[in-house]
Amino acid sequence: MLTTRLDTARIQAARRFIDPVFLDTPLYRCEALEPDLGCAVSIKLETANPVRSFKARGTELVASRLAGDGRHAVVCASAGNLGQALAWSGRGRGLDVTVVASRHATVAKLDRIRALGATLELVDGDHELARDRAAAIARQRGVRLLEDSLDVETCEGAATIGLELVDTAPSFDSVLIALGGGALATGVGHVLKEQAPTVEVLCVQPLGAPAMTRSWRQRRVVTTESTNTIADGVAGRRPIPAVLDDLLLVADDAILVQETSIIAGMRMLLDHAGLVAEPSAALGIAAILENPERFAGRHVATIVCGSNVDVAAYRRWVRPTHVHRP
Amino acid sequence: MLTTRLDTARIQAARRFIDPVFLDTPLYRCEALEPDLGCAVSIKLETANPVRSFKARGTELVASRLAGDGRHAVVCASAGNLGQALAWSGRGRGLDVTVVASRHATVAKLDRIRALGATLELVDGDHELARDRAAAIARQRGVRLLEDSLDVETCEGAATIGLELVDTAPSFDSVLIALGGGALATGVGHVLKEQAPTVEVLCVQPLGAPAMTRSWRQRRVVTTESTNTIADGVAGRRPIPAVLDDLLLVADDAILVQETSIIAGMRMLLDHAGLVAEPSAALGIAAILENPERFAGRHVATIVCGSNVDVAAYRRWVRPTHVHRP
Repeated sequence: MLTTRLDTARIQAARRFIDPVFLDTPLYRCEALEPDLGCAVSIKLETANPVRSFKARGTELVASRLAGDGRHAVVCASAGNLGQALAWSGRGRGLDVTVVASRHATVAKLDRIRALGATLELVDGDHELARDRAAAIARQRGVRLLEDSLDVETCEGAATIGLELVDTAPSFDSVLIALGGGALATGVGHVLKEQAPTVEVLCVQPLGAPAMTRSWRQRRVVTTESTNTIADGVAGRRPIPAVLDDLLLVADDAILVQETSIIAGMRMLLDHAGLVAEPSAALGIAAILENPERFAGRHVATIVCGSNVDVAAYRRWVRPTHVHRP
Repeated sequence: MLTTRLDTARIQAARRFIDPVFLDTPLYRCEALEPDLGCAVSIKLETANPVRSFKARGTELVASRLAGDGRHAVVCASAGNLGQALAWSGRGRGLDVTVVASRHATVAKLDRIRALGATLELVDGDHELARDRAAAIARQRGVRLLEDSLDVETCEGAATIGLELVDTAPSFDSVLIALGGGALATGVGHVLKEQAPTVEVLCVQPLGAPAMTRSWRQRRVVTTESTNTIADGVAGRRPIPAVLDDLLLVADDAILVQETSIIAGMRMLLDHAGLVAEPSAALGIAAILENPERFAGRHVATIVCGSNVDVAAYRRWVRPTHVHRP
């Protein structure tokens, strides 16, 4: 019996509160990626929905509970995807949603948060400052603070991806999961460890934002002074102790990857799979690229967890290294 | 009672013979597209599967029937997507698959057909010559010829998309469907006309390959001497009479669009929806772009039916019209 904060029966029940548009997402072998990666690769695609990331699985849970309890407002800090998802889930249930984000967040994400009707407040600092500010707003106004990865709904919402992974034959040798605050990794990891314990749970984080990976390796919270990565969705500096405790129970390894590999991963997903991935969503492919012997001949599933990119930056990232002329 | 060659009970039964990886594809509102299009837009996404197009819904039916009948070989002509799908469906059932294609077909499609283990034969001419050659091979070898749009399995396989469209609330005012040989349009159109008769069935074809649209308008088969479009998936010149008869029963209109609109549609799908679409899959967006008054304020569903592109050509098509510099 796994003793994380998550509960598999509750995760199964969570599906009823999540709009079906976010559930039962595509899961398929992508053979066109395989010659370059040297292993069998399955894609779990979380981008073909109204908010282009997996985050709504969690915000649907939160928003339906708030609405059920007669609450009217909620605030969260977000690098952009959680905020979009909460704005979408809150709008459908008549909730006032406030999102606090860094002034340096991905512009496309901020635009979508506003377009979905949420109040957006920007802070002059990074995501950790946004977390502080969101907490202050919640205290001042007496409204619910949604804390990504700390609030178990965000983990159990993400964990419904795990149910979909174990429901489908064939099983995988490893599942590669983007590691940021830890909701996705502890959520999917919990279900895998309970229902498919032979499958490796591999977390992947950028070298430029390694706080949670270092914490996992040292089995204690390690913070960093700054982050330096294009993978904005996973760029935290202050791991949450309770989330680390869960991660220690479910992760088989945590892998750090370079920025160039993340970019190569995005380009491969576009060129060989026809998929737009934001940097965080290419971490799994980056891990395979950097560790070919480790994955050779195995069957690996990777969660393509978001596609919200600034168009100009994305075009630069996926620009061909050799110019093709017709 | 609709008197096409298709049968709704048979279409419902067809789902059992199609690998679930091709069924129940994403269907979602894409609000980020809407400010530029002036109407509500829902995407039915047929690209997140092992062959990156809807065509396997039909080839799964064909291949399972052939395997059930103890047949060992099948041949088809293809612009590339049907061939890939038949190669995938045949490989899983031990069938020898031969695909005949134009030497000028999209290279990425031809590469995937080979990679999936099919025998690929190229002809020095267009898709119509490939059709003739495939028929000759079938006669010579005594193997099953799969004819796209003529063989009712290709239409009824595609029609399972229609079941998924009518199963999901809310309903749409119009569904925009790429029109080539007619399998997709007659398939989806049949189900819509039987189960949601108030929904407009709108077919879209390039001005550079207008044979089926002209035939629909004149209510008789009209052929053309040549085609001139980047939308390789719908570039036929010789409509099939039986398919035209069905199209006359189910289509409310057939719209022709310019190449520049198809390119603009592909770019919008990439920039605002994060979706790679091949030219044929952008026909619906192109139709909205060219007819803003017609669609203003309505709710339109468009089937993004394939994403198989040559990378270099795709990069040219979606290149920004204004160069963004950071």
